[in-house]
Amino acid sequence: MVELADDAMENFPVPDVEALPEDLRDRIEDETERAGFTPNVFAGFAYKPSHFRAFFAYHDAIVDDAALERAEIEMLIVAVSGVNHCYYCNVAHGALVRIYAEDPLLADQLVANYRTADISDQHKAMLDVAVKLTERPAEVTREDLDRLREVGFSEEEIWDIGAVTALFNLSNRMAMFADMRPNEEFHTLGRKQD
Amino acid sequence: MVELADDAMENFPVPDVEALPEDLRDRIEDETERAGFTPNVFAGFAYKPSHFRAFFAYHDAIVDDAALERAEIEMLIVAVSGVNHCYYCNVAHGALVRIYAEDPLLADQLVANYRTADISDQHKAMLDVAVKLTERPAEVTREDLDRLREVGFSEEEIWDIGAVTALFNLSNRMAMFADMRPNEEFHTLGRKQD
Amino acid sequence: MVELADDAMENFPVPDVEALPEDLRDRIEDETERAGFTPNVFAGFAYKPSHFRAFFAYHDAIVDDAALERAEIEMLIVAVSGVNHCYYCNVAHGALVRIYAEDPLLADQLVANYRTADISDQHKAMLDVAVKLTERPAEVTREDLDRLREVGFSEEEIWDIGAVTALFNLSNRMAMFADMRPNEEFHTLGRKQD
Amino acid sequence: MVELADDAMENFPVPDVEALPEDLRDRIEDETERAGFTPNVFAGFAYKPSHFRAFFAYHDAIVDDAALERAEIEMLIVAVSGVNHCYYCNVAHGALVRIYAEDPLLADQLVANYRTADISDQHKAMLDVAVKLTERPAEVTREDLDRLREVGFSEEEIWDIGAVTALFNLSNRMAMFADMRPNEEFHTLGRKQD
Amino acid sequence: MVELADDAMENFPVPDVEALPEDLRDRIEDETERAGFTPNVFAGFAYKPSHFRAFFAYHDAIVDDAALERAEIEMLIVAVSGVNHCYYCNVAHGALVRIYAEDPLLADQLVANYRTADISDQHKAMLDVAVKLTERPAEVTREDLDRLREVGFSEEEIWDIGAVTALFNLSNRMAMFADMRPNEEFHTLGRKQD
Amino acid sequence: MVELADDAMENFPVPDVEALPEDLRDRIEDETERAGFTPNVFAGFAYKPSHFRAFFAYHDAIVDDAALERAEIEMLIVAVSGVNHCYYCNVAHGALVRIYAEDPLLADQLVANYRTADISDQHKAMLDVAVKLTERPAEVTREDLDRLREVGFSEEEIWDIGAVTALFNLSNRMAMFADMRPNEEFHTLGRKQD
Repeated sequence: MVELADDAMENFPVPDVEALPEDLRDRIEDETERAGFTPNVFAGFAYKPSHFRAFFAYHDAIVDDAALERAEIEMLIVAVSGVNHCYYCNVAHGALVRIYAEDPLLADQLVANYRTADISDQHKAMLDVAVKLTERPAEVTREDLDRLREVGFSEEEIWDIGAVTALFNLSNRMAMFADMRPNEEFHTLGRKQD
Repeated sequence: MVELADDAMENFPVPDVEALPEDLRDRIEDETERAGFTPNVFAGFAYKPSHFRAFFAYHDAIVDDAALERAEIEMLIVAVSGVNHCYYCNVAHGALVRIYAEDPLLADQLVANYRTADISDQHKAMLDVAVKLTERPAEVTREDLDRLREVGFSEEEIWDIGAVTALFNLSNRMAMFADMRPNEEFHTLGRKQD
Repeated sequence: MVELADDAMENFPVPDVEALPEDLRDRIEDETERAGFTPNVFAGFAYKPSHFRAFFAYHDAIVDDAALERAEIEMLIVAVSGVNHCYYCNVAHGALVRIYAEDPLLADQLVANYRTADISDQHKAMLDVAVKLTERPAEVTREDLDRLREVGFSEEEIWDIGAVTALFNLSNRMAMFADMRPNEEFHTLGRKQD
Repeated sequence: MVELADDAMENFPVPDVEALPEDLRDRIEDETERAGFTPNVFAGFAYKPSHFRAFFAYHDAIVDDAALERAEIEMLIVAVSGVNHCYYCNVAHGALVRIYAEDPLLADQLVANYRTADISDQHKAMLDVAVKLTERPAEVTREDLDRLREVGFSEEEIWDIGAVTALFNLSNRMAMFADMRPNEEFHTLGRKQD
Repeated sequence: MVELADDAMENFPVPDVEALPEDLRDRIEDETERAGFTPNVFAGFAYKPSHFRAFFAYHDAIVDDAALERAEIEMLIVAVSGVNHCYYCNVAHGALVRIYAEDPLLADQLVANYRTADISDQHKAMLDVAVKLTERPAEVTREDLDRLREVGFSEEEIWDIGAVTALFNLSNRMAMFADMRPNEEFHTLGRKQD
Repeated sequence: MVELADDAMENFPVPDVEALPEDLRDRIEDETERAGFTPNVFAGFAYKPSHFRAFFAYHDAIVDDAALERAEIEMLIVAVSGVNHCYYCNVAHGALVRIYAEDPLLADQLVANYRTADISDQHKAMLDVAVKLTERPAEVTREDLDRLREVGFSEEEIWDIGAVTALFNLSNRMAMFADMRPNEEFHTLGRKQD
């Protein structure tokens, strides 16, 4: 039987997995099987089942019905989380960047400063807009979207760039407000082991 | 038959309501009946039905399963939207603040500067934390949550303060990225008419 | 006989109108007659008659000897007040924007984010410079003034763009420091009533 | 006959003194006699006589009807101009700080960082509020005014602290927008000469 | 014979090690022997030998004559590099934090947000001051130093907190200006390997 | 015999010159002879001799092995110190700007706002990059270095622009942390005396 780590977050109590509604338990078991451990974000959102359902449904919609590549989605997430200074998302999605982009160094680059990352000019433009929408949303204008189109993104890809950025501006704030802690496994997943 | 305004948003095309999946059409019809007009946010998110479903499910979870009063939720939304400079949310949720708080002036106060609003000290503490989580999320610490408890909020209400703030940091960014435009009706709804 | 609202400002006492010098009483009566009510800014500045005279004389010079249209002046005021987060000026001059620009929606757009306002490119350039001079005055250079000339403003209009912006950086700070409260009438003046 | 320096400002033409209305010429002559040279701010505002009259009338009201000491007014001006990065006001009012506070070092301290200035705790509190009202006016609340009262300022002195700060947020912006240049004399006036 | 990686930095050419003065070659050989690889910062500063000598002499003085523990020095460095967004220093000194603090997670915490790190209150106070001195040096006052003394730091330790912070505000800027790239080894050094 | 001023810095004790190691005493005597007084930065760094040696060795390397002109180095220092709001460096290096650039006004311009300084376009580009590297180092990219090359700087001069900026981001922070006070002489050195 799966267990939720007591120290998965610092600012709210982590519920007992047995006390959760069945759909949450099922989702948590599936995720645990897939990852080999239970990512702490599931323990965190389990505090309020209605929000757990809403958050992961949104996440699934973003990821499963995406015009962008999965590696692009994870790059967006880590660049956004880097400027928001979100420990949980830097580390957990950093692991996913390493895995999906098959690059053991990219996550550390994106966490530090996406401008120094070894990525294409197209992806640099993508992250320019995502970081602007994160830090100075009032200054985003049609010109920013036009630039995305000029570097080759389709209209739906542009929508998705906005949507991923927006969702992780929610996600970062939930993780930081609850002080969610990434599982130790995420720190090393996908790193090149000699 | 309901129609979606072509100018509901500037940066993406508004779909034809007849081309939408049935669940979206149903939701839009319900909302239109309730409000007397179709709020443009439904036209905006209809661009991508999977995201429409996810967004309104999250919104419903936040509002329908809330430990906070509805007036408190709308106050949070407008204070957050004010500092994010989101035109759509200022105006649409400004109307809801006027209605739920039964105060024709409060929305204009919150849009300008929540520190000048005619609200209780408890609500001022609530908005202090919401605005900090919006503008400087990395600086939010346990002390901020403790302060909310000291002014009388329960643990679940504190979670909800974080959750509403987080959702509207998503929502503001979607509305600003797509350049959604509030319906004219929102500008005057709930204002005291002599 | 005109009266000054006791709650016209929160941080200083509002004087009795009868105790004021005659020239202040006359000005207040004229304004009251014109507006149908006494705008609270007159009650606020009446705290110190020498400053009352100076402020309204400056205001009159800006408005009465202007190269700009009155609607342009009010647009500048509301865009500046929006980024300074001044409740009094957002609401009182928001009403004047609605009236002089004959547009019931423009004020709410400018309060939120002038970049989303339905205005000409020329006016967008005007507000770009006004907001820059408000938020980051040290970064304003000759290039900004050149841009205003390129979009069609005369030399004296450019001076006036600077002068209106400067005056409302004063005015916003006086209103915010004294915590002046806009009259209820301003919230609805010039809105489209169905 | 007095002359206005052609290079008194960079971004607008300096008018010929003979072409000015008589009241401006008289004021300029008086100031020139008093200072021994014509401060360039008179040449700058002479560009538009109605604004010249308004600006100096406001300045006179602030200085001549002040509850604060003149040295306090000049300290406020230089601290505000320092954080706004206004070259003209730093240098011209820096000279006035040296003269009125009879301290050859204080202006350079205030231009750099008022927190390092050799001043009383009362004056440090005064400048704390002035700089906050300059940089983050939306965050100024009643508590800031209360603190000024606690360190010994009267109600009218507190009003004046706000008023001086507000006026020089106007003045700095006019000087920076027009790129006014301080007269060479101001750089050395009041410095201790061995 | 040691070699310097051509891609040790992006913005300046990396010199040939054989062309370097003997003292630089000796230092580089010693470091290579100690680490098992040549950290790219040596390749970077070798561009200008006089600066190479000065930088490493300063670094040695800070580390070898320190009142602070080495783990404290590395924690300061990574917290400072995190807010400055320096890729090289995050990664290279992140490895050193893992090694000296014997904690495989601490570096990722400090890079993200030192406020979420698992550290003592004393070290949190130390990093509060270091980050303030990094981001808003003009606001650091005697009160900040007093707080360090209150949590138990000696006078010389306080000096060293300032000195480490200052040196890495230099170091971060050199690494970012030259676009130095951390060696791959640093990304995994000191991580817990299962 | 040279003496170190007790009030050379506020936040740490100034050591007795006789208690210093001989190499520090020699350096201090040389500097005193050269300047005619003992600059307080020597008294400040004497608190910790190992850091004294490191700091002045770095300073000497920057100045003595420079591709830039000395006047350019001092311009960089004062522009950086101006935006960092460092009282000691503004005043002490302000004197050096006046002397090396043979311009009695330039230092006051650079302290206030380098954008208003009477300097060449080449030097304005140099200061643009230095101030960006100071205030927003994460946003400096190859494009900024390319711009320096376009306006005529050699590769080594570009390195030095980065190196001077980096060193004074250290130096400003040491002076501000220790609250070093400039000698009175610096305030007037190099000013035009009529």
